[in-house]
Amino acid sequence: VPLEVSGERFAVVYRLTGDAREAQAKARDICVEQTIEFPPELVDDPDILGQVVGRIESLERGADGAYEASVSYAVETAGAELVQLLNVVFGNTSLQPGVRVQRLELPDALLAQFRGPRFGRDGLRERLGAPDRPLLCTALKPMGLSAKALAERAYGFALGGVDLIKDDHGLADQPFAPFRERVARCAEAVERANRLTGGRSLYLPNVSGPADRIVEHARYAKSVGAGGLLIAPGLVGFDTMRRLAEDDALALPVMCHPALLGSFVTNPEAGISHYALFGQLTRLAGADASIFPSYGGRFAFSRAECRSIAAGTAAPMGHLRPSLPAPGGGMSLESVPDMLATYGRDVIFLIGGALHRRGPDTAENARHFRALAESV
Amino acid sequence: VPLEVSGERFAVVYRLTGDAREAQAKARDICVEQTIEFPPELVDDPDILGQVVGRIESLERGADGAYEASVSYAVETAGAELVQLLNVVFGNTSLQPGVRVQRLELPDALLAQFRGPRFGRDGLRERLGAPDRPLLCTALKPMGLSAKALAERAYGFALGGVDLIKDDHGLADQPFAPFRERVARCAEAVERANRLTGGRSLYLPNVSGPADRIVEHARYAKSVGAGGLLIAPGLVGFDTMRRLAEDDALALPVMCHPALLGSFVTNPEAGISHYALFGQLTRLAGADASIFPSYGGRFAFSRAECRSIAAGTAAPMGHLRPSLPAPGGGMSLESVPDMLATYGRDVIFLIGGALHRRGPDTAENARHFRALAESV
Repeated sequence: VPLEVSGERFAVVYRLTGDAREAQAKARDICVEQTIEFPPELVDDPDILGQVVGRIESLERGADGAYEASVSYAVETAGAELVQLLNVVFGNTSLQPGVRVQRLELPDALLAQFRGPRFGRDGLRERLGAPDRPLLCTALKPMGLSAKALAERAYGFALGGVDLIKDDHGLADQPFAPFRERVARCAEAVERANRLTGGRSLYLPNVSGPADRIVEHARYAKSVGAGGLLIAPGLVGFDTMRRLAEDDALALPVMCHPALLGSFVTNPEAGISHYALFGQLTRLAGADASIFPSYGGRFAFSRAECRSIAAGTAAPMGHLRPSLPAPGGGMSLESVPDMLATYGRDVIFLIGGALHRRGPDTAENARHFRALAESV
Repeated sequence: VPLEVSGERFAVVYRLTGDAREAQAKARDICVEQTIEFPPELVDDPDILGQVVGRIESLERGADGAYEASVSYAVETAGAELVQLLNVVFGNTSLQPGVRVQRLELPDALLAQFRGPRFGRDGLRERLGAPDRPLLCTALKPMGLSAKALAERAYGFALGGVDLIKDDHGLADQPFAPFRERVARCAEAVERANRLTGGRSLYLPNVSGPADRIVEHARYAKSVGAGGLLIAPGLVGFDTMRRLAEDDALALPVMCHPALLGSFVTNPEAGISHYALFGQLTRLAGADASIFPSYGGRFAFSRAECRSIAAGTAAPMGHLRPSLPAPGGGMSLESVPDMLATYGRDVIFLIGGALHRRGPDTAENARHFRALAESV
């Protein structure tokens, strides 16, 4: 029986450490490890060797001295599933030192299997009634506040015109502010403020909870008026984000939070590039916006790495809509001009704690933030 | 309103790079970043500062010159959920360079929220009728074979006495061997061989599929006679593994596969230690066995790292049963004596491709493998 393969292939560009001979050996190992994971000399089916095993399409030395290998795989190896696509891209090879996923090159035949961002840049801007200016986001915190106190903050932020008011990613279902109470109160508060201002602020609760309750969490959030969802795929899996983003009964904007994804990027010789992880993969999994720690804040991402993430949110990916980069992690109002120069206007400025430094009046602080974004 | 905290705390030991001053600063940052993620000077509630923010319990210089900080958190910050526990342990800090999670120290009050391995070492041995000897595992592969051909291999392995016959982790729902057909055929084949031999081999299909189908996959597998489940938490999330392991309607042994988990361990100055990741965390998420690439094979884990994993599967964790280490990744029959010396008898020898090197008779190869394990 001949193998059912279409001939369509996708490619992964890997960065490999070592000299030419070592890079060649690594690329060959990847072709086998990511597919048949079996001694090729013991395979007697020429179709498996010819079609299923990965194929080195190119191997070139880059400007930094490391080698880049483009390895292609039959789209059928990924079985039309995001989980298995991730597995073919980097499953076992993630356990090897000196191999980094630089970027994915996915043909339309594969991209057709994914919906991608439901709203994307244009859809989110339309929903927010903000066709052109940079968008604004803040987080409800600190953990330990009551649901009532968090809702008061949400009200002030919405009153002042912050577009996206998300739970801090550390808010789960703690006794301080239980999930259902918090989500109902905050959604109501944002709606109340919107009625007063005529604005369209959205509240995005963190639904990254237990695997058997996450859909229920999201449905509940929708039912009480949440305007979007915050999800951390590092905590709950990329495919859980895809599942929620593709859910037509929810049909809510999705913001991706980077919690627990850091280990993929902190070692430049291994893991997954900023571009592929926070740009391409979050988009493939349906995120309308991708949060990441910007240069110049509490974290150590470089300006170039951050730029590459922004590029990944907009790079051509067939029918997939571009998503929005949401740089945060210690940004302040003073960071806005420089961030604007780096990211352009298609950006979500995420400012959390620093928004409180101006004083205790949440709405006033939010108005200042909004005026800054309107003025650029 | 005073905060509802029990006073029970769990601790995470972090390894920090830098000198004493830098390590102190990093530890202080972790206390805030992993909890309130908010400027402490803007918090006016003394309970939040005193109870919710993490606390440095100790900071000491280790033998290798790096510092180890023990940071404790109120158990309530983790909200009785594995997802949120992972978030508090390492969510945002995973994005910082120079911080590695060395180990978790979890009190009974927190461990009581988790079932852990349903079978564990004793339960799995009882189910397999193997009270004392090393256990045997192999993988069905290569990808590209038909369901029928994979089932023939499964039959041979069971006939020869391999205890655990798992899908290769790359088998998903590809057209070569669709999930339902493959699982039904392989489960039937193993059952047929068991009837002939009186043995108790188990077939463990890979259920790491789409988030909205994974429970259905597992139920289907159980319904057609699968004896366990193979799950890759790096692909589907640790909490999905926990959810399946805790499901009383399934009540099946769970093997954890390390696909896509590698980036946590490849950088010794960041990520999560082998001990905590493959030992403690997989166990907390209900794995009865933890697969990892052993030293001496195709991967680069050291003997010490592998030993630490085995230690993590058995270290005291309250009421949680010990799980079994399953070293694989290029192991051969010749590796058995050395592996035995390293891991002891409470081990699962996972030999895949190399089992085929002796010749095309799967059952005969399996018998040889079994005899080897019986003789030690």
